[in-house]
Amino acid sequence: MSVEIIEVGPRDGLQNHPRFVATFDKIELVRRAVAAGSRRVEVTSFVHPAKVPNLADAEQVVAGLGDSGVDSIGVIMNARGLDRAIAAGVAEVNVVVLASDTFGQRNQGMTTAEAVAEARRLLPRAHDAGLRASVTVGATFGCPFEGETPLSRVLHIVEDVLAAGPDEVALADTIGVAVPEQVERVFTAVRAVTDAPLRCHFHNTRNLGSANVLAAVGAGATAVDASVGGLGGCPFAPNATGNVATEDVVYALHRSGYPTTMSLDAAIDNARWLGGVLGEQVPGLLSRAGGF
Amino acid sequence: MSVEIIEVGPRDGLQNHPRFVATFDKIELVRRAVAAGSRRVEVTSFVHPAKVPNLADAEQVVAGLGDSGVDSIGVIMNARGLDRAIAAGVAEVNVVVLASDTFGQRNQGMTTAEAVAEARRLLPRAHDAGLRASVTVGATFGCPFEGETPLSRVLHIVEDVLAAGPDEVALADTIGVAVPEQVERVFTAVRAVTDAPLRCHFHNTRNLGSANVLAAVGAGATAVDASVGGLGGCPFAPNATGNVATEDVVYALHRSGYPTTMSLDAAIDNARWLGGVLGEQVPGLLSRAGGF
Repeated sequence: MSVEIIEVGPRDGLQNHPRFVATFDKIELVRRAVAAGSRRVEVTSFVHPAKVPNLADAEQVVAGLGDSGVDSIGVIMNARGLDRAIAAGVAEVNVVVLASDTFGQRNQGMTTAEAVAEARRLLPRAHDAGLRASVTVGATFGCPFEGETPLSRVLHIVEDVLAAGPDEVALADTIGVAVPEQVERVFTAVRAVTDAPLRCHFHNTRNLGSANVLAAVGAGATAVDASVGGLGGCPFAPNATGNVATEDVVYALHRSGYPTTMSLDAAIDNARWLGGVLGEQVPGLLSRAGGF
Repeated sequence: MSVEIIEVGPRDGLQNHPRFVATFDKIELVRRAVAAGSRRVEVTSFVHPAKVPNLADAEQVVAGLGDSGVDSIGVIMNARGLDRAIAAGVAEVNVVVLASDTFGQRNQGMTTAEAVAEARRLLPRAHDAGLRASVTVGATFGCPFEGETPLSRVLHIVEDVLAAGPDEVALADTIGVAVPEQVERVFTAVRAVTDAPLRCHFHNTRNLGSANVLAAVGAGATAVDASVGGLGGCPFAPNATGNVATEDVVYALHRSGYPTTMSLDAAIDNARWLGGVLGEQVPGLLSRAGGF
């Protein structure tokens, strides 16, 4: 079965970037991702523009996607974000629940329990409006303040989240500390408590991003978040590299016998294009090394 | 059991570097590797200085190691190199056999069979002189000219190499194309035909270096080549990153439950020191992100 690649570059890749990327370049990035084979793309986040100035053009980006054929995903944190997402016309919303109270309070102003409660309010409303709705459990593998996240806590959160009726549950290594053995263990345990489709979200902060993707897919994840060129450094590790690069993940999956709908050549071309737009060398390696 | 980390930065990390690193910095690099926990260090290569100008100071480096406590390894390609290695006083020599005829002829001027025959001549002479002697099978996982290396060919070469009586056999992904599933398959198959200690050598060219190390160790490799900071780009992919970084590998192993004799903090410190010596950002990521 084909592994689905969800392009998150327009949102997670760019939200903390030192420079604002023009709206028409964001739209072009989405169109290029679709042309390379991604159907679902996380196109923006509906948060207060003062908090994430890089994504202040959320509505304009969605409006510009018109005939692109994308199933657009918008990240939301509250009812105001959901209202904006519905009005903008995205196909899907994503709600993040951080598995650590300390991290959640600092990042979202909510404990884990409060974020779960918010997800339970938001998801039925999204479904009523005809949108798909998914939940990402962030800091699943570790927290910068609380250390490694206990598996029992992850399972408890996932069970709570399932009550919100998500179309998909994503497990995210928000700060890039996971190792493949841990990923396999956690995904296998979560797989055992739900039939919901599972998605994985990794950062290559410590050079194990592709390794963790392979471990997650091997343990039942059917969708993988990835960012063109590997953009998206974590604000908690200022020099660290970002999300797993779409082109690197496509190489790792294809060579490991997992088909996707993606073209590696097109993904590499997109990374080089984005490097040109940003005027920098992207962290992903396939655009330097080429395929095999 | 502890996984052994063999530091190869002074040789494989520096041999193709754009600038010559001063002899006293090379010696300091070896001393720092030992202080961080590596006992065996690939300190240089005894080849013609016109071929690898960066290692023209092979004898001076070895002479400068005096009381460092290192078990020094010198790479050799022929009898002249072995003579120099014996005279210099290294503890071990390493002979490379490339698993592809085309790659071998371009890189060493020898087919695989010729390189195996050379190893069979050199290893008994090294042993007679009281040195340890190991063989690295290069391009085990793929060749830039011939594509993926058939497993049957790898097994045939390993069996031929074993007749030379190596103290250890290393399997090397010279051009950085392997994926973990392939690594597990190849190491498991090689493990089945020999009791000789197995070592692995990976490049992070396509962001799977640490993943492949974990797969090799999981399938029986007891020693891992790694390079401080991840230096050592491949001349066949000019923009590609190099060897797996020592500090990244130590993080991946320790967090996956494999003990080593290494200190992660000291390895990170060495990477930062080397970046300072070279005046550049090293490719390894732990020196940017820090441990967890």
